[in-house]
Amino acid sequence: MKKQVVAVIGGRSCTKKVEYLAQNLGKNLAKVVDVLVTGGLSGTMMAVCKGFKEEKGITIGILPSYDKKDANQYIDIAIPTGLGLARNVLVVKAADVVVALPGKAGTLSEIAYCLQFGIPVVSLRSWNIQGVVRAKTVRQTLEQVRQLLKEKAS
Amino acid sequence: MKKQVVAVIGGRSCTKKVEYLAQNLGKNLAKVVDVLVTGGLSGTMMAVCKGFKEEKGITIGILPSYDKKDANQYIDIAIPTGLGLARNVLVVKAADVVVALPGKAGTLSEIAYCLQFGIPVVSLRSWNIQGVVRAKTVRQTLEQVRQLLKEKAS
Amino acid sequence: MKKQVVAVIGGRSCTKKVEYLAQNLGKNLAKVVDVLVTGGLSGTMMAVCKGFKEEKGITIGILPSYDKKDANQYIDIAIPTGLGLARNVLVVKAADVVVALPGKAGTLSEIAYCLQFGIPVVSLRSWNIQGVVRAKTVRQTLEQVRQLLKEKAS
Amino acid sequence: MKKQVVAVIGGRSCTKKVEYLAQNLGKNLAKVVDVLVTGGLSGTMMAVCKGFKEEKGITIGILPSYDKKDANQYIDIAIPTGLGLARNVLVVKAADVVVALPGKAGTLSEIAYCLQFGIPVVSLRSWNIQGVVRAKTVRQTLEQVRQLLKEKAS
Repeated sequence: MKKQVVAVIGGRSCTKKVEYLAQNLGKNLAKVVDVLVTGGLSGTMMAVCKGFKEEKGITIGILPSYDKKDANQYIDIAIPTGLGLARNVLVVKAADVVVALPGKAGTLSEIAYCLQFGIPVVSLRSWNIQGVVRAKTVRQTLEQVRQLLKEKAS
Repeated sequence: MKKQVVAVIGGRSCTKKVEYLAQNLGKNLAKVVDVLVTGGLSGTMMAVCKGFKEEKGITIGILPSYDKKDANQYIDIAIPTGLGLARNVLVVKAADVVVALPGKAGTLSEIAYCLQFGIPVVSLRSWNIQGVVRAKTVRQTLEQVRQLLKEKAS
Repeated sequence: MKKQVVAVIGGRSCTKKVEYLAQNLGKNLAKVVDVLVTGGLSGTMMAVCKGFKEEKGITIGILPSYDKKDANQYIDIAIPTGLGLARNVLVVKAADVVVALPGKAGTLSEIAYCLQFGIPVVSLRSWNIQGVVRAKTVRQTLEQVRQLLKEKAS
Repeated sequence: MKKQVVAVIGGRSCTKKVEYLAQNLGKNLAKVVDVLVTGGLSGTMMAVCKGFKEEKGITIGILPSYDKKDANQYIDIAIPTGLGLARNVLVVKAADVVVALPGKAGTLSEIAYCLQFGIPVVSLRSWNIQGVVRAKTVRQTLEQVRQLLKEKAS
């Protein structure tokens, strides 16, 4: 049976504060879903994976390069696409629900793809674009994710 | 010698007013560059190609599907990528300068890629995201495109 | 820590005999590695996943379409790429070692990518191209896979 | 109106003899079609473009990298895909007919894609795989290409 998947997107560098937010998000997401997909790199991607692994979830990193070594240390399964930024499409399309953490244009392109595909995206202190669900805390985010996964499954 | 290339992005459906804007833009862009790249489909993409062909430029359509027949009738050379929305990366990366016309999330993803790649993007009544050059008229757009191409070439 | 990954490639339709071979291969591969990657569809891909799940391994299907429903029922995690045949690159690049089962041109393109990347590929009654390791039985295949994984890890 | 397109595939390094063959092929192909698509790099790709430009055809290079500077000097329009080897799909899919020159695994992957898509491929002293049309000389190749383009158009 297919496992439910959440993707978390966000910058490959971040402040300590956002890093803590991401790790906390990851830890709590692991109580909701089995599989976390990210772009597999550093910054917010690494922090959320670190948190997710604390609760023994499966982490998948969809990398822009051909080199599995580019994956952060909390990635269980690295998919080295070699597609460059075109891999952004794959990160969000793999997910039932997406959570956006703070990030720049790369994160914006991924949010845009969510909107185009109709994949629900919760923006946790990230871009405020028409169509995203906004959240200010990890707790609010988790409530939204739970609700959106339930709607998807039904 | 490599030819200079402008890409125009925008919605696959549009109002009559935007259609006229796009065609007018295309016609005038053909006086500035030899090659126009678009996503190859309908709406703004078709209108800008139509204008560009009035002045005998070369039009390239980078299609999401594998089917050349999806290209509009003003495309000279269709590149049927079969990549789906991942082809958005290719449309903007082919260009020295990008012009954004009104469009939805697909257009937003392409603007985001421009910002990430550092490709200059002129937003002609399209998304207002930090980092884009804004224009209200075809005339303003052409001035900006000329200036940006000159900077690129130097 | 990164998990070792084997990819199995082969036709999306196959004879009963090859289906049995694929299932038997999958069951035995699950004793060697934790993760199986395939193209996620029917035929050899489904049979090898079925065998792999008998031993509780994790199966990943890297799909050509955007539709997770295209994944066979033995796929745990579907990656719906929307890349069409370009997804063939991703299937083999995700793996430490590849096993090729009988298949047509799609399988040939994947073997060619293995050779180009330098990924070892065991051909179990599949294409005989210079550079592949040939095997006639599941047992021979497993010996080769074990040996190649050991070389990779060292 | 869509222009007819031929793609030429082959190694990114080659002997002087093959280089001459490729240049001669390019020069003669330009009398048959307006547009030549290649992978845009060195070796056979450069030589065929050089010949094609002698007769003023339009050359398109679909590059694996994001860097237009990777295109050889005879490319008019560079499409820097950033897709790595996945760009092989695009090279052949852009064409009505493909000609294969000598090359290694990369060329084999492209021939395999032709067979999978049903794009006719003439092998000029290249891989001998079931389904390709074989030719020994440029003259034979041109006869085949003319015939295959005619069948395609009808």
